Amino acid sequence: MARATVRRRVVRLGEAGPRTRPDALAAEEPLEIRLGGDPLTVTMRTPGHDFDLVAGFLVGEGLVHGADQLTSLRYCAGTDAEGANTYNVVDAAVRGGRIPLSAHRNLLTTSACGLCGRDTVDAVRTHSRWKVDEDALTVDQEVLYALPDRLRAAQRTFDSTGGLHAAGLFDARGELLCIREDVGRHNAVDKVVGWALREGLLPLTGHLLLVSGRASFELTQKAALAGVPLLAAVSAPSSLAVDLAEELGLTLVGFLRGRSANVYARADRITTGAAGG
Amino acid sequence: MARATVRRRVVRLGEAGPRTRPDALAAEEPLEIRLGGDPLTVTMRTPGHDFDLVAGFLVGEGLVHGADQLTSLRYCAGTDAEGANTYNVVDAAVRGGRIPLSAHRNLLTTSACGLCGRDTVDAVRTHSRWKVDEDALTVDQEVLYALPDRLRAAQRTFDSTGGLHAAGLFDARGELLCIREDVGRHNAVDKVVGWALREGLLPLTGHLLLVSGRASFELTQKAALAGVPLLAAVSAPSSLAVDLAEELGLTLVGFLRGRSANVYARADRITTGAAGG
Repeated sequence: MARATVRRRVVRLGEAGPRTRPDALAAEEPLEIRLGGDPLTVTMRTPGHDFDLVAGFLVGEGLVHGADQLTSLRYCAGTDAEGANTYNVVDAAVRGGRIPLSAHRNLLTTSACGLCGRDTVDAVRTHSRWKVDEDALTVDQEVLYALPDRLRAAQRTFDSTGGLHAAGLFDARGELLCIREDVGRHNAVDKVVGWALREGLLPLTGHLLLVSGRASFELTQKAALAGVPLLAAVSAPSSLAVDLAEELGLTLVGFLRGRSANVYARADRITTGAAGG
Repeated sequence: MARATVRRRVVRLGEAGPRTRPDALAAEEPLEIRLGGDPLTVTMRTPGHDFDLVAGFLVGEGLVHGADQLTSLRYCAGTDAEGANTYNVVDAAVRGGRIPLSAHRNLLTTSACGLCGRDTVDAVRTHSRWKVDEDALTVDQEVLYALPDRLRAAQRTFDSTGGLHAAGLFDARGELLCIREDVGRHNAVDKVVGWALREGLLPLTGHLLLVSGRASFELTQKAALAGVPLLAAVSAPSSLAVDLAEELGLTLVGFLRGRSANVYARADRITTGAAGG
């Protein structure tokens, strides 16, 4: 079954000379996602919370927006040389039968016509079921400052491998509701969004999403399609992430470190306190 | 035309209270890659060195292995609302006419059957034109230790944005031959490999490839398909990256920081000096 880490022998080079020792690695395995039996995509992911991953992936592609649409998620096929299930193929069934093939081929992350970023932003706006609620959230900067430490403290696997991205979902008071780790940062976000979908929490009005790395267009898109009004990243955002956030009215925070942060869009949702610094 | 950074206004939160100021962001725009006029994929990338990116992508998918196969690379279509070329669509022509559609659909990065990592590793081995040369390279640990600083010193855009991954190609003495930056780490590697293809350097026997982040399966695959005998990463590798490196006889180095490193596969290519630490 799913294991987040794998042990291997490694040669450590350093001042003491080369030493062979065991090391823990972040596990990475392919997951094939099927929709109604048809192959949809393959993602390289860290095993664990696979159903969350699949559910969140479908949300991020604009194919699913409510838990009642997902009629089943199951491991299927996928046997190794010894005939054991590899748990690396998940089939999702969606209410109303199969989604038209055109929808399969038109996955949002690859549906941009390539002409310009504007088209890409438009595609997300078209596919997003929810508008970000104007009054969805007000959060104090002190709440923001506390998030990275809470995410870090909850990361189980990073400490042993140094190789996993994390995504965390918080309520407006900064309480951690769900954390997921993965070798792929988009997978970590999918797992969190999928958890929220299955808990019946979508759209995520009044919630905050924090990612351990950078804020790309893709992650901002996933946040928008889950209805999150605030996305925060420990590192830098890209230009298109900022464009999309502005367009959709999403608050985008970057470089959230220590007692400072950059707000790239909709800073009005963040209060900075009367007492000042 | 292509710009690696974009300036935007940002609200800086901190001890001094909120301040609005200009900030440089890493540019991210979609690039549609076409093969003989047919759409192949869309990748979110930092504009610049797009022909290198497309060439390297085709190498990484096992579709091209020599510069003479690429008969043309050109910007096509892609006009914005004002009719100006967006330079976000590149069409590649490959010798011998179009590659069969089955090859398009069977892109390596999504061709794993999903059953197990073994199948994924096998797929790469099957598609790779070159075996890693057993005697391809011997490199001293001191050469390795020097690489990250050289890569960092050559990173132009990271300093201003904090938002770009880098990949660098070095010769066996540690001389930097090519560096490329991108919001996507796989794109940075594609750009370097594409540069090498167009320079007639493939297979990259006797070279070292360094990436600024982690070593995933996908990056290891790209290194293998370019014929690089040694891949080094500043951060952690994943389990499947190590599996693939072992299978193909590629030297895989991780956590290359300061005067230490972990060697996960084929450590015999690295000499540690007679003087010791």
